[in-house]
Amino acid sequence: MDKQIRVTAFAMNTPTHLSPGTWRHPASQGRRYKDLSYWTDLARTLERGLFDGLFIADVLGAYDVYAGTPDAALRGGAQVPVNDPMMLVSAIAHVTRHLGIAVTASTSYEHPYPFARRMSTLDHLTGGRVAWNIVTSYLDSAARNIGLDRQVGHDERYDIADEYLEVVYKLWQGSWEDDAVRADDHYADPAKIHPIAHEGRWFTVPGIHLCEPSPQRTPLLFQAGTSHRGKDFAARHAEAVFAVAPEAAMLRKQVEDLRGRVAAAGRDPHDIKVFSGCTVITGETEAEARAKYDEYRSHIDPEGMLALFSGWLGFDLSPYGLDDPVRVVPNHAVQSIAETLGQGDWTVRDLLERLALGHPPVIVGAPDKVADEIQQWIEETGADGLNLGHVVTPSTYEDFVDLIVPELQRRGAYKTQYADGTLRHKFFGRGDRPAPTHPGSRYTHAALD
Amino acid sequence: MDKQIRVTAFAMNTPTHLSPGTWRHPASQGRRYKDLSYWTDLARTLERGLFDGLFIADVLGAYDVYAGTPDAALRGGAQVPVNDPMMLVSAIAHVTRHLGIAVTASTSYEHPYPFARRMSTLDHLTGGRVAWNIVTSYLDSAARNIGLDRQVGHDERYDIADEYLEVVYKLWQGSWEDDAVRADDHYADPAKIHPIAHEGRWFTVPGIHLCEPSPQRTPLLFQAGTSHRGKDFAARHAEAVFAVAPEAAMLRKQVEDLRGRVAAAGRDPHDIKVFSGCTVITGETEAEARAKYDEYRSHIDPEGMLALFSGWLGFDLSPYGLDDPVRVVPNHAVQSIAETLGQGDWTVRDLLERLALGHPPVIVGAPDKVADEIQQWIEETGADGLNLGHVVTPSTYEDFVDLIVPELQRRGAYKTQYADGTLRHKFFGRGDRPAPTHPGSRYTHAALD
Repeated sequence: MDKQIRVTAFAMNTPTHLSPGTWRHPASQGRRYKDLSYWTDLARTLERGLFDGLFIADVLGAYDVYAGTPDAALRGGAQVPVNDPMMLVSAIAHVTRHLGIAVTASTSYEHPYPFARRMSTLDHLTGGRVAWNIVTSYLDSAARNIGLDRQVGHDERYDIADEYLEVVYKLWQGSWEDDAVRADDHYADPAKIHPIAHEGRWFTVPGIHLCEPSPQRTPLLFQAGTSHRGKDFAARHAEAVFAVAPEAAMLRKQVEDLRGRVAAAGRDPHDIKVFSGCTVITGETEAEARAKYDEYRSHIDPEGMLALFSGWLGFDLSPYGLDDPVRVVPNHAVQSIAETLGQGDWTVRDLLERLALGHPPVIVGAPDKVADEIQQWIEETGADGLNLGHVVTPSTYEDFVDLIVPELQRRGAYKTQYADGTLRHKFFGRGDRPAPTHPGSRYTHAALD
Repeated sequence: MDKQIRVTAFAMNTPTHLSPGTWRHPASQGRRYKDLSYWTDLARTLERGLFDGLFIADVLGAYDVYAGTPDAALRGGAQVPVNDPMMLVSAIAHVTRHLGIAVTASTSYEHPYPFARRMSTLDHLTGGRVAWNIVTSYLDSAARNIGLDRQVGHDERYDIADEYLEVVYKLWQGSWEDDAVRADDHYADPAKIHPIAHEGRWFTVPGIHLCEPSPQRTPLLFQAGTSHRGKDFAARHAEAVFAVAPEAAMLRKQVEDLRGRVAAAGRDPHDIKVFSGCTVITGETEAEARAKYDEYRSHIDPEGMLALFSGWLGFDLSPYGLDDPVRVVPNHAVQSIAETLGQGDWTVRDLLERLALGHPPVIVGAPDKVADEIQQWIEETGADGLNLGHVVTPSTYEDFVDLIVPELQRRGAYKTQYADGTLRHKFFGRGDRPAPTHPGSRYTHAALD
């Protein structure tokens, strides 16, 4: 296999992301999430390991479905407190040269006009290394705190998101022509800067974009929709998706389904990169890796896990005993448990067993064994790479960089240096801007006039 | 005089801030506003000169009152294109240790719940060095692009801003008790984390703040309101204000008026620091400074200036000839020309003469003469320091740091090292949190229950 496996690190601006309680591990730096040096150190580690990017998840609410309060999430440091991911980007860009930085932002909570400016600013400051993970949001707690009684309905959220994308494409792709900035006698040529005159159902934006064209114009677009509507949205807009499944055959089916939808949307099926959720626990030897696995598990806070599960499932698990069955069905969450484990009947204990160390597959072992399994997983699933979660941060990433990356490189399955150029160019090798068949490319200035 | 003069640099994420066209000066780095290294270099220069802070202005719209289009502003690089200031903060914090970073953000365009999180995140990442310059916004173009027909009325904007501040105080000051984060067996103690249960006229925010307490909790608050309503708002909330006047007596009157309003609001009149707008052009000799002044003027784009003036005045100057009189009256703009020059009848030529190099006083000369004038200005006005604009960036700041700072230090009128601690502690020497008489201090967790 000569396919080079891409890797992003899956993190969040919070004490613990997918494994509540692990900030208590002696090696964990999770409590330092609020310090700038935690992030600049992590970014340098990832760039040393030639990671494609740092993918920063986000929610704008606390997980309060469990027992109807955020208490269990707060005790476990389970995605709360949670700081803003966008504020990290410029410092990370300053200490790295190639690492992509994917920030999660919702189409439900900020108007597209200021949002488009924020992302253009980041694309300028990073030299074209920023990506946007598009989410429509799924926590009622977030909706309530911005003054809505509850979340807008799921399908309507996607309708809004479609128009939101239309607005930002017009601003990013269409408003300023490539040669609008002259910087000679005049700074810019107004004849080459176009008001977008957008009047839609949800948004009215008459004016010009406030930013000159950034290296990528549209930031590289990530998405992780798991519902039918979400998958169609991803097939239309996304250039990279994050997908999770416990077995290779299930992920292969997801990948094939997605590539089919991408083709149906008039795009090349490989104009979308699939990153498979994955957790790797490794050490110099098999025994060391196993010992680490057991030790990591011992730091998990089960109640914090159940707080996350209740949020993802959309119902309260607090009345359930460990051996009670839980009916898992797709619930439209960004990353539902049904997608992660497969739907069906599980006990609470099963959920804890299988998800406590993050997204499956959880690959444990010495470097050669881990490399074997990763290569096999990529081959069998058709995914392009891994979105690597952590149990203990930054140890999980340091171990991967020090032990797994060299092993994969020896096998020719991992890059030995970064390609030059913007994040999009690194992904597709075809320049900085969205592909001609991508919907963003439709919104040229000519189309606006 | 042994008063130590405070200095902030007044900048904007755009090619030219107050002197359109000066990006064309050979020494200007204005075109590099979109590069991260421009900002990190500038921040290092300011910290070398022991500046108290970098104050970043912002507007969310283009100046399109002049001739009814943004064309003149675009040609002059006059505050458009304009990138987001908040995105700069973490990189600036990374390359400095003491410099304060004041970002401008409007209470009109983003919901207070996500905004409070952004600022708490920045306060964490900067170690308590962030300030918020509160604006209510004044450009119709910005309002239109977020879907409003026009700006909401001026007084209503301040009513909204008052409630906005109430919401963010509750989140920043009241939601999490100081010892809510334990990081022992539990990350946080839910009994010490309080939902704010805010139900107001404009905002409903039932939940907890998403961030644990940051060093300052409430970022240091700047404001620059010039209307009566704006001054009362500043007197209630601001801990630093930015004020502009062409003559010392006028500024003194403003400062006294403001301190009176602060006292009337139940606060110590000196719990607010006044930064006077000011421009300094200097060189090794008087002749060198004069030559620089003339050369700088030659790069000004008059039409770009008129685009800014039309936005500030609220009417279109394009039909006016250079010698036509312009009736200047206060118009509620953040920094109105009436405030800057005094109200009355001026010709267009007068405006260009007096404002082309930024806010008055424009002090030109060799270092000893400039230091004399600065000391006299501070003494006569009662201001605490200068908000130093630039004509050519970063030359204006480099000159000040290399020539004026040492001269003021020799006179004992400028610090020779930074004080330790957060920005608020550096300003007032009384700890990290707002003073007990500041309205933010009222919103303790006890007050929420």
